[in-house]
Amino acid sequence: MIGIKSIASYVPAAGLDNYVQGAKFGKDEAFMFGKIGASFLPRKDDEQETSDLCVEAVNNLFAANPQLKRESIDALIVVTQNGDEEGLPHTAAIVQHKLGLPTHVAAFDISLGCSGYVYGIYALKGFMEAAGLKNGLLVTADPYSKIVNPEDRNTTMLFGDAATATWMGESATWQLGRAKFGTDGGGAPHLKVTDGEFYMNGRQVFNFALIKVPAHLHELLGESGLENSDIDAFCIHQGSAAIVDAVARRFEEDPEKSQADKFIKDMLETGNTVSSSVPLLLQKHMFDSTWKRVAISGFGVGLSWGSAILYKAE
Amino acid sequence: MIGIKSIASYVPAAGLDNYVQGAKFGKDEAFMFGKIGASFLPRKDDEQETSDLCVEAVNNLFAANPQLKRESIDALIVVTQNGDEEGLPHTAAIVQHKLGLPTHVAAFDISLGCSGYVYGIYALKGFMEAAGLKNGLLVTADPYSKIVNPEDRNTTMLFGDAATATWMGESATWQLGRAKFGTDGGGAPHLKVTDGEFYMNGRQVFNFALIKVPAHLHELLGESGLENSDIDAFCIHQGSAAIVDAVARRFEEDPEKSQADKFIKDMLETGNTVSSSVPLLLQKHMFDSTWKRVAISGFGVGLSWGSAILYKAE
Repeated sequence: MIGIKSIASYVPAAGLDNYVQGAKFGKDEAFMFGKIGASFLPRKDDEQETSDLCVEAVNNLFAANPQLKRESIDALIVVTQNGDEEGLPHTAAIVQHKLGLPTHVAAFDISLGCSGYVYGIYALKGFMEAAGLKNGLLVTADPYSKIVNPEDRNTTMLFGDAATATWMGESATWQLGRAKFGTDGGGAPHLKVTDGEFYMNGRQVFNFALIKVPAHLHELLGESGLENSDIDAFCIHQGSAAIVDAVARRFEEDPEKSQADKFIKDMLETGNTVSSSVPLLLQKHMFDSTWKRVAISGFGVGLSWGSAILYKAE
Repeated sequence: MIGIKSIASYVPAAGLDNYVQGAKFGKDEAFMFGKIGASFLPRKDDEQETSDLCVEAVNNLFAANPQLKRESIDALIVVTQNGDEEGLPHTAAIVQHKLGLPTHVAAFDISLGCSGYVYGIYALKGFMEAAGLKNGLLVTADPYSKIVNPEDRNTTMLFGDAATATWMGESATWQLGRAKFGTDGGGAPHLKVTDGEFYMNGRQVFNFALIKVPAHLHELLGESGLENSDIDAFCIHQGSAAIVDAVARRFEEDPEKSQADKFIKDMLETGNTVSSSVPLLLQKHMFDSTWKRVAISGFGVGLSWGSAILYKAE
């Protein structure tokens, strides 16, 4: 059974002081901390391409796992909607070359936004099992600094650049349990790029997440035969502090048995990193934890959403 | 075991007389027939988006399979590098909505070119098996008329618009056997889009295919424990008549036991339809055949290649 063996990341050191940026739009620090959730937004250099962020994350993965050799990699998926080139070629091919991976690698991009990691781990695991592959890399890198207008108060305070790399293979500590997915293209206009600029209807996206995600998590738990108390932590997409808090509150069925403190919120130094937000949480909080079972959920562009249970192998 | 249950397609009725186009570039009908391989190049209407081509192909699939209900679809992958929008949202979400598929569909795009169908069937099968899904659609639609410059003699005579839809699920007649994949991003500059226009270094791509594909097919057969004579047909990407012929000739190890006539060539009315070329061949030639085992191969943008064995379930 192919599972998650290790996660690494790359977060640019440079970036924006988001309190300064908030002040420009008349937002105080309490609002930036409590609602937006980010005091700092990492930004890639103008010279860095999306593939360069991927390469940094994968090199950090190799550094953390010296037993993993480049020659043993046989699958590579890049999750992005802001790749290097105009549609073609795919960014994964460029990453294969820049990393010096062997040419027997099966490489492709998956186009998904904030739900991308949840889909991506099942897509990579499934592809590897169907094709008989052994060591796969799932890379997320969706630098919204390419498309966000710094004058757009609805988006410029939210998004940070980052990339993550997940090693998937046999004998993994963390295994993939049940998953659920969803798509509603009727909401596609709420998050889209036109003439190179990103547009978001924040109210619509907030409402979508608040209606969809808590119910989706409850359904997933029910179908898995699990109680809320069986889940040690909820690592959901860090869209904003307000959305994480609101989903956590809505998820509670009984305030006496609140689960809200199990919803990890950790985006102060990164902002909303799109498909990198969930793996950043897992990297920082899951691997050294005593957790046995984690629920993850991603939601956004599409509209698209996905939730899954990860569990520690015995 | 999830396999291929049915394939349908959509080829626009309108298009270009390629003999007329060839004459413009000083190419006679013998050249257009024997080297290019297409007398006609289908072209979508300007008003048709990529998602519209997908919708037509899937509606043809539903029409051919009345037992397949929209409500039962739970996975949808669109293989394209020329989707509807600028990177986001993904085309699969738009297709979900236009088709009226249920919102419990897991939908995403895969970014690959002419190798995309071979990767796509393993990605969809694997994703469905990993996530416990039952009825998936793999849609290919990569209308190069969006990016080909009609004055570029290296590309405008080659590419036709088309879309295909493959139903994957349990109890399928055709199952997926062994597969092999490859990627060489060092060749990425040979096929790319810059400022909205497609560029191809035809000589480099021809040489790549001729060196890579016959050897890759031999390796795949060897690893599968199969002889050339065990394969009833080779359905490889229809890049041009010249490349199909050259790959077939190079594949022969012994001219006395020629396999060249098993290489299906059928692109006269479509041209090179990118990721739709292999499924168009399978739709037309495999389902009503007496074949038991088919080898497929796709190769192109990336550079990327993939080959696989399909076999008829007993």
